Amino acid sequence: MNPAEAHPDGAVPALLARGRALAAPALRSAVARLAPPMDTVAAYHFGWIDAEGRPTDADSGKAVRPALALLSAEAAGVPATTGIPGAVAVELVHNFSLLHDDLMDGDEQRRHRDTVWKVHGPAQAILVGDALFALAIEVLLEVGTPDAARATRRLATASRRLVDGQAQDIAFEHRERVGVAECLEMEGNKTGALLACAAAVGAVLGGADDRVADALEDYGQRLGLAFQAVDDVLGIWGDPATTGKAAWSDLRQRKKSLPVAAALEGTGPAAERLAELLMGDAKKSPEEFEDFDEAEFATRAALIEEAGGRRLAEEEARRQYDGALAALDGLDLPDGVRERFAALADFVVVRTK
Amino acid sequence: MNPAEAHPDGAVPALLARGRALAAPALRSAVARLAPPMDTVAAYHFGWIDAEGRPTDADSGKAVRPALALLSAEAAGVPATTGIPGAVAVELVHNFSLLHDDLMDGDEQRRHRDTVWKVHGPAQAILVGDALFALAIEVLLEVGTPDAARATRRLATASRRLVDGQAQDIAFEHRERVGVAECLEMEGNKTGALLACAAAVGAVLGGADDRVADALEDYGQRLGLAFQAVDDVLGIWGDPATTGKAAWSDLRQRKKSLPVAAALEGTGPAAERLAELLMGDAKKSPEEFEDFDEAEFATRAALIEEAGGRRLAEEEARRQYDGALAALDGLDLPDGVRERFAALADFVVVRTK
Repeated sequence: MNPAEAHPDGAVPALLARGRALAAPALRSAVARLAPPMDTVAAYHFGWIDAEGRPTDADSGKAVRPALALLSAEAAGVPATTGIPGAVAVELVHNFSLLHDDLMDGDEQRRHRDTVWKVHGPAQAILVGDALFALAIEVLLEVGTPDAARATRRLATASRRLVDGQAQDIAFEHRERVGVAECLEMEGNKTGALLACAAAVGAVLGGADDRVADALEDYGQRLGLAFQAVDDVLGIWGDPATTGKAAWSDLRQRKKSLPVAAALEGTGPAAERLAELLMGDAKKSPEEFEDFDEAEFATRAALIEEAGGRRLAEEEARRQYDGALAALDGLDLPDGVRERFAALADFVVVRTK
Repeated sequence: MNPAEAHPDGAVPALLARGRALAAPALRSAVARLAPPMDTVAAYHFGWIDAEGRPTDADSGKAVRPALALLSAEAAGVPATTGIPGAVAVELVHNFSLLHDDLMDGDEQRRHRDTVWKVHGPAQAILVGDALFALAIEVLLEVGTPDAARATRRLATASRRLVDGQAQDIAFEHRERVGVAECLEMEGNKTGALLACAAAVGAVLGGADDRVADALEDYGQRLGLAFQAVDDVLGIWGDPATTGKAAWSDLRQRKKSLPVAAALEGTGPAAERLAELLMGDAKKSPEEFEDFDEAEFATRAALIEEAGGRRLAEEEARRQYDGALAALDGLDLPDGVRERFAALADFVVVRTK
């Protein structure tokens, strides 16, 4: 299904544009409250200025989370603008985790730019991450209502799940094998938790009860898992021309993503051959590994596919996508809100890059 | 004044013991909620287990903050136990900041033990710090009252001030000179903010209004500044036999502490000679600096004293101590509470180590 066909009215671009338009000014004014030099470092991280401090044509990304947070408010029958502090807080937490994860993972590039620790040093990456996290809690609690406190509690829990997910991801790197169940748990924490929070935060701010908020979190959680399963498939079989990443990107990074975990749980000859190859790969130095030619990655990708890893990941994406929509079934939503949640799900899951 | 004379009933030891006894079990059960291996890493950081995971005779420190948080509840006329979630949350934030600061500062030892980043690696120091911060917010909001939300907002603001203070401290390292005003601002953020929060959090949980909470924060903030001024004096002139630190400890670390900043703002010959010496020191490598003999540090200490740095720091400690007690003047406090706040202030400020 092509999202453009399913939603000829351009619902998704409008939702994303609204998320950006409403959240961006509030996000900028929140970040401006940071003490120097952290305000500048944060502005660099968000892509608002370059490493020399000059303003850029900011590419603020897809902005799915802000779009979700605003739609979430409408799910509770209140104006989208009620969700703005939630959208800002979720973006602040997301970026706190990016700053710290990039440092822990030693990643030097994000969105084709040098990461903060690379430009401003590790201490600034830690400090600004910490400051954004504290700011997220402040921004949400400044709303000053009991509902804002409920929303903040959900945000704090989601933040701790983000940290859990990163801790699991790091632990997996040092292990030879990761099971499908563990992989899904890690991805649920690392990708699901904050999308879940984004999907519920606006509604909670608008006074929705816990049953509604839990259902919206369930939608967001499954949306995250579906997104990640698709991402894992694209990480191996995605077309470099559309993904912007190197071919076999996740295989180059020796990532134990869902298709790999699933393939290794198989019992056929392809699974056995794959296990042998990956065990050999694990012993290679990064330099030896870089010398691999395309054919060697292609062999691994073919074995993963033959052992059923790709199929399982694609089925998981579909299952979670269906589950996300089903999570909304019991809810009494205002006109058009369910359709827009569905459109966002299509956009997140049905994609080629 | 000797605190034992001023409070012959042993008010302070009792307050500290109560803080430890009531907060420790709640703190341990909060930390036990962290996902492995972060629960173990945190238990090591808190001194509950050693690097091999064996239980230790935990030395949980002076526990001034928990004692303050519980007394703070009594200030609002509610039982001390009402302050427990506040005491736990403040301790969690304090330890989040220690974990991150030790990593940023490259400090290898804390309380005579290897720091977490040294034992478990930088990623665990970042992760566990982040998790403790999130946990602090959760623990406080789980109280579930509007007052808990007010307390959490104050905690988030204090946390951001902690981060600001650490950012300033790091920035000062790279500068030749730091003024007294800047130095006090940094110390207010790094030491004052969380003591301020501890002094108010119990009262806020107990329903105190913002006027009372602000006055208690003012007490805690000034207590922190007084403590730090005393600490800065001991960092130079403290007796190694009682402080447990090397002689001239802060001079060895080339710290731009309050006495140094104050001395350099002087205009006499001692200030000028000190400025020359410190400018020369700043150009030396750590190795050259380690070769300094005692006489060279003694010369610097004498010049700081002659230029008025020690006197200013001691006056500042007295001024902030007086201000802390004055902050409570307008409050209508239950019997004995004011006296115990005063006893804690004596304990924190009148000390030799």
